[in-house]
Amino acid sequence: MDRKSFAVIGTGAIGGYYGAMLQRAGHEVHYLLRSDYAHVRANGLHVQSFKGDFDLPNVKAYDDVAQMPKVDVVIVALKTTQQSLLEHLLPPLLRKDTQVVLIQNGVGVEEATQALVPEARLVGGLAFICVDKPAEGFIRHQQNGSINLAPFSSTEAEVAELAEVFNQAGLPAQILPHTDARWRKALWNMPFNGLCTVLRTTTDRTVKEPHARALVEAIMQEVVAGAQACGVETLTRDSIANSIAYTEAMAPYSPSMKLDFEAHRPMEIDFLYHRPIAMAEARGAKMPLLKMLAAQLELLEANIQAQKAE
Amino acid sequence: MDRKSFAVIGTGAIGGYYGAMLQRAGHEVHYLLRSDYAHVRANGLHVQSFKGDFDLPNVKAYDDVAQMPKVDVVIVALKTTQQSLLEHLLPPLLRKDTQVVLIQNGVGVEEATQALVPEARLVGGLAFICVDKPAEGFIRHQQNGSINLAPFSSTEAEVAELAEVFNQAGLPAQILPHTDARWRKALWNMPFNGLCTVLRTTTDRTVKEPHARALVEAIMQEVVAGAQACGVETLTRDSIANSIAYTEAMAPYSPSMKLDFEAHRPMEIDFLYHRPIAMAEARGAKMPLLKMLAAQLELLEANIQAQKAE
Repeated sequence: MDRKSFAVIGTGAIGGYYGAMLQRAGHEVHYLLRSDYAHVRANGLHVQSFKGDFDLPNVKAYDDVAQMPKVDVVIVALKTTQQSLLEHLLPPLLRKDTQVVLIQNGVGVEEATQALVPEARLVGGLAFICVDKPAEGFIRHQQNGSINLAPFSSTEAEVAELAEVFNQAGLPAQILPHTDARWRKALWNMPFNGLCTVLRTTTDRTVKEPHARALVEAIMQEVVAGAQACGVETLTRDSIANSIAYTEAMAPYSPSMKLDFEAHRPMEIDFLYHRPIAMAEARGAKMPLLKMLAAQLELLEANIQAQKAE
Repeated sequence: MDRKSFAVIGTGAIGGYYGAMLQRAGHEVHYLLRSDYAHVRANGLHVQSFKGDFDLPNVKAYDDVAQMPKVDVVIVALKTTQQSLLEHLLPPLLRKDTQVVLIQNGVGVEEATQALVPEARLVGGLAFICVDKPAEGFIRHQQNGSINLAPFSSTEAEVAELAEVFNQAGLPAQILPHTDARWRKALWNMPFNGLCTVLRTTTDRTVKEPHARALVEAIMQEVVAGAQACGVETLTRDSIANSIAYTEAMAPYSPSMKLDFEAHRPMEIDFLYHRPIAMAEARGAKMPLLKMLAAQLELLEANIQAQKAE
């Protein structure tokens, strides 16, 4: 396999982990950082993983995209609340055939990004991973690490080659149709991110208390109906039972939106709720419960902003 | 007007205020107390009211219903979470023609109470009042004070006489059909109690933030549809606009359910949500948003109970 060049835009827990694994496998990786820049430039990255710890004392760290080279593959691991930045961050990194993997949550992410950067060859990246960043340059990988790659404006052949690169770097990768991949992750994200945030609780509680569990199911039924309206055939009622059983088996977990809310960071309401809801409703699906959840999140967000303004 | 005898079951802010006003007007009032018993027996009641303060140094205070006399009118001002207590608290106070006024929130309150005490002549009491109890025996009356009386198993003539007694005691009373009275108060209670509790916010915020305001409207539409299914003709789409405009004009307000939640007291989810939802659904109305709100409240309640058990 050829050595490839990567750029990681948004070197948080997820971007840092995937970048570090690819660098360790011998690829050339360029990291764009903000808050951790000075620390990582001086000390590199430290990965503590259940699959084995490792250090990368030397990493190519940048705080300005203009200093970075054009690469074979860009990995975008920003929060979608920063999506508009890509209009300026992506073009300097792109050759004609550069692939851009959007490892981000939500539905409609590729559509919105393509509108910002029409020339980008986009691939959806759906990460199934439990990873956080407890300190600067310190990545703690707790569970899983697989990724679903979903061709959008990149070809299937190009994505197949990329999946091979990920697999060889110890990052289990599968290829899924784009709409399926996005909505399959939404099946879990849409009930649990919103409910755990609004109710200040963890996933285990929402599937244990009977009223809340029935609500999770009802919300998942809306997601499945929305996905089906958008052409997804691989999500069914069975998927709902599986997703709930999977969540029951998990350790108590606070989804990313809840962590954002608690840290008073902007929440990804737009791509996790408003956009998929609008896409499904435009195709005739009804989503009253998801709209209610989105409205509740908007009020929480507005209250945080009002608090900050005080 | 004849001097009447009253018993107040549940001498908190509301029961204390209505009882004190009736006593001041010359009626005989017997108060059943729990936490404030010793203080009130020794010191009486103090009412601080925007309509004029007054003291009642001597009140007939009881901590045991068996010591109380039978009366003309019983005023029940317990939280509905304690409704089952009425099976034992009411019968010792009842003569054949004793009226029982249930000054409580929710829908289905009279039906449930009648099942517990079949012989009671029940009247719904819907209080429009802003009153709290900042200390033992100290009632602070901030706004309004009117009451809608709704004949249930008491006759209209009996309720008309009772309304006269209330009016002459400075308690503006109107008579409304029972189902109308309950659902008209539910129009305000159902969106604002639940949303302010779940979202830890005040009424003003929910009608200001545009998504939340649209959600309040959507929930009110469900309440109106449910009320209409139950035979209420006086609630319409205009009622929704009026209720929202009224709430916009109010000072920021925390509804009683939010105060109960913050104090880790049981919430009135059953009579404010489950029962009206079941009544409306039995008559063909759909209430998905209200069921979602009820489920969210149940999870909050379960989490509080789990916390207490730890």
